[in-house]
Amino acid sequence: MKLIDIYSRMKREIAYIEKELERSVYSDHPLLRQTSVHLLKAGGKRIRPVFVLLAGQFGDSRLDRLRDVAVALELIHMATLVHDDVIDDAGTRRGQLTVKSKWDNRIAMYTGDYIFAKALGVVTRLPNPEIHQIMSKAIVEMCIGEMEQIRYFFASDQRVRDYLLRIKRKTSLLIAISCQLGAIAADAGEETARKLFQFGYNVGMAFQIRDDILDLCGTEQQLGKPPGSDVKQGNITLPVIYALRDDDLRPALLAELDLIRESEGEAGALSSFIARVVASRGMKQAEELAGRYVERAINALSSLPDIQAKQDLADVAMFVANRSY
Amino acid sequence: MKLIDIYSRMKREIAYIEKELERSVYSDHPLLRQTSVHLLKAGGKRIRPVFVLLAGQFGDSRLDRLRDVAVALELIHMATLVHDDVIDDAGTRRGQLTVKSKWDNRIAMYTGDYIFAKALGVVTRLPNPEIHQIMSKAIVEMCIGEMEQIRYFFASDQRVRDYLLRIKRKTSLLIAISCQLGAIAADAGEETARKLFQFGYNVGMAFQIRDDILDLCGTEQQLGKPPGSDVKQGNITLPVIYALRDDDLRPALLAELDLIRESEGEAGALSSFIARVVASRGMKQAEELAGRYVERAINALSSLPDIQAKQDLADVAMFVANRSY
Repeated sequence: MKLIDIYSRMKREIAYIEKELERSVYSDHPLLRQTSVHLLKAGGKRIRPVFVLLAGQFGDSRLDRLRDVAVALELIHMATLVHDDVIDDAGTRRGQLTVKSKWDNRIAMYTGDYIFAKALGVVTRLPNPEIHQIMSKAIVEMCIGEMEQIRYFFASDQRVRDYLLRIKRKTSLLIAISCQLGAIAADAGEETARKLFQFGYNVGMAFQIRDDILDLCGTEQQLGKPPGSDVKQGNITLPVIYALRDDDLRPALLAELDLIRESEGEAGALSSFIARVVASRGMKQAEELAGRYVERAINALSSLPDIQAKQDLADVAMFVANRSY
Repeated sequence: MKLIDIYSRMKREIAYIEKELERSVYSDHPLLRQTSVHLLKAGGKRIRPVFVLLAGQFGDSRLDRLRDVAVALELIHMATLVHDDVIDDAGTRRGQLTVKSKWDNRIAMYTGDYIFAKALGVVTRLPNPEIHQIMSKAIVEMCIGEMEQIRYFFASDQRVRDYLLRIKRKTSLLIAISCQLGAIAADAGEETARKLFQFGYNVGMAFQIRDDILDLCGTEQQLGKPPGSDVKQGNITLPVIYALRDDDLRPALLAELDLIRESEGEAGALSSFIARVVASRGMKQAEELAGRYVERAINALSSLPDIQAKQDLADVAMFVANRSY
């Protein structure tokens, strides 16, 4: 089953969530309406709502039970993206202008705060305080992950485990709780929620590693932003950490990293650095680790009942590991 | 009764809230712990917790009922301050370095997000969903207020009502709900909560008008930041709007505003502009409007039972209207 088939089968539910997302960020304030709608229209795969909906299939999957969880999680994700674009000084995302570049940094910061507050408003509609607590803890961890990313900018001596802990906080946790909270909202039982959390965590790790690989070897058209954005701002990702372990490569890479840092990402040093990493064994090693996370994700599903959603989740996991956009 | 006497009588409760604030932002992450503790130690009058505690006296005022409301509101306030300092490019606040100047803008943005998430964590401990909803709506309005402030930068043709609506969102609403939620958390009854909201709203308006007056006529020592910060960044406040109505003053003020805008706050134009406004009738008119809000605040209390907290609230309102720091 291809991803597009899963999305096409869930078309009605996804369209409903999309409408709810629009409704939830609606504002009488013209500028906030514009920035929020711009963000929504810029798209995204709505992977978190899709995980909520699929996880909900293991329990009482009525849409009114899952809706608020799906919408709140996507809003939290959107709010962090707007703030990240300010931090990363990103001009485009998914081929669209970012809020910070279409408007400015100040507008982007308050748009993020606004969407975050709207997410909080949606969360308050959920009767289960356990869900609130899981969400707020995840947001705290996401902030820590972002701070850690800054702390490790250009840190060429960081370990693989530093990277993994960072992407766990930055990315995997929100995907993990999307699966977990879908199950909790659908009353699917504690053990199922736990397995789905494990699934989501591992998919999230694979997703972010794949994202970091693509940032090095994707084209601007595939990525919707210039390749090499990570290293340009100092974000040392898994393929780079692996490549730096190669004694033959390390001196040249370190020299270029210094150049990139000093020149704030001047094109020559950047493209030479990227070419070196892409040609290195680091790429393959990163692919392999992503593949292992996908395996673990699929294993986490093994004891769950054999419903369609289980196959769909496995398919999404496979897609994540192999996607080229 | 002087303000210091009220604080001194509430010393035990305020110390308890202070400890809870510290506990609630505690993080294993060293940098987040540093930035959060720096923020806490930089002080502030804790006016929102004080209002929660005083409003709670009209019902069941046990501290464990009021604690989470007081802490959540103060955290929300702190989070917005950190983000405002990024937007305003503020170097100091209350005489202390801001997070953005002691660390940097990125750290400040994520510190704000982190404290906001911690506030959400505290809110989730509150069993009453009405409280969650009131808080999330207030945060949405605060974001709109901040966006409006940006939209009206250097807008010399704005009306008094534009200004009033903006400060209502930016400042008054959070103070209003501090009083309201203190009453709700203490089960003080709907009518009492409504009156206390009115009280807080009017005190908040007076508070912000007074703040804006002080920004023009205070000393750097009183303010903990350079005077004229508002107009320097383009924030047109009430005394300025009034002064611009004076046909004899208007042309010179407009010319200087242009200069301030173009020169990004060059000292000559700024100090001449401030001197003109301070000498104008606009200052007196702004003082008068602040005074009328204080009157309305005290009137809102009139039908409430004559307990000590009622007198204390009135005293805080009087203080707010006359404070010089």
